[in-house]
Amino acid sequence: MDTFDAIAGRRAIKHFDPDHTMPEADLRRLIEAAMLSPTSFNIQHWRFVVVRDPDLRREIRALGNDQAQMTDASVLIVMTADVDAWRKSPERYWRNAPKAVSDLLVGWMGPFHDGRPQLQRDEAMRSIGMAMQTLMLAATSMGYASCPMIGFDHDAVAERLNLPPDHCIGPMVAIGRGIKDSWPKPGQLPYAEVVVENRFPT
Amino acid sequence: MDTFDAIAGRRAIKHFDPDHTMPEADLRRLIEAAMLSPTSFNIQHWRFVVVRDPDLRREIRALGNDQAQMTDASVLIVMTADVDAWRKSPERYWRNAPKAVSDLLVGWMGPFHDGRPQLQRDEAMRSIGMAMQTLMLAATSMGYASCPMIGFDHDAVAERLNLPPDHCIGPMVAIGRGIKDSWPKPGQLPYAEVVVENRFPT
Repeated sequence: MDTFDAIAGRRAIKHFDPDHTMPEADLRRLIEAAMLSPTSFNIQHWRFVVVRDPDLRREIRALGNDQAQMTDASVLIVMTADVDAWRKSPERYWRNAPKAVSDLLVGWMGPFHDGRPQLQRDEAMRSIGMAMQTLMLAATSMGYASCPMIGFDHDAVAERLNLPPDHCIGPMVAIGRGIKDSWPKPGQLPYAEVVVENRFPT
Repeated sequence: MDTFDAIAGRRAIKHFDPDHTMPEADLRRLIEAAMLSPTSFNIQHWRFVVVRDPDLRREIRALGNDQAQMTDASVLIVMTADVDAWRKSPERYWRNAPKAVSDLLVGWMGPFHDGRPQLQRDEAMRSIGMAMQTLMLAATSMGYASCPMIGFDHDAVAERLNLPPDHCIGPMVAIGRGIKDSWPKPGQLPYAEVVVENRFPT
């Protein structure tokens, strides 16, 4: 599917066919596409938790305002990130680069992150955002519906997933066969309100 | 361009033709695509700062480790977000929805955000991430090169842009005509390292 069609066609779908199973190859194709999303310093700190266990999905739904797509979609992916990835053998993120490039970037990576917990978290959240959108556009392009979700008890879900203490949790994405269209776009802001020329007015 | 080709073809390009000018219609098409990216509660809190003023671009480059793409790319877009958008007439984000839907979501929006500054910031950063990736994939699809950048003095650039105190600043994206390919992917992590089945191992 053309990129612009995927961008315009992607909508948050709430109703999925619970009997549909996604072929393993499709899931892998989706996640491999998401893994091509950019990260600063090529840190690739996202960790995609693919929840298949039906009991766990029911538990998550109970912690997520009873949203049906949490159990009914073919796939439920919880977006998490390793906030400490910058100090876990970072040379591997540049292992195939020329040594001068690798030395420069790996050497800069530590000081850039060290002692800056808010920056580390911001980076994780932005990387999660970029990867999520790639996942949803790839899904749209393959004829799947998707739904990003943030309305759930983050701490409780993190605990159920055994999320390590140096990781953070972001939204979930449900992907599957949609059975009901979304409502029309509910209220797009005008271009002039979200685009600023050069500087914000004082 | 096919969505998967855009995803695979998007690379961070550092060298742009400084003499290329992007037609206004192309810029608008790119930003209108980015505006179709999802946001929680349809809050649309991203604010795209399009920097055209050559003096301002030189100032930003001086605050950004002298990265040439900050002045040489046809377009430089600084990603910012209004962190307080949830309390600025939120009914407008749902103005075209049925009243019951609008009342429900607008009514939930306040309590969801109120008193949770870290969540508000996380949301802003994720929305910026999703919109950035849409922008870069749309650019790739139109034959443009792009480069996301986070290495600059955030506070100083925010001040130059008159960023309001209730907004936050994210990365910049340079878009234009690329004149030199990126290096090969420097070190992709294996699928098994970034994909977790059901739960993290204990």
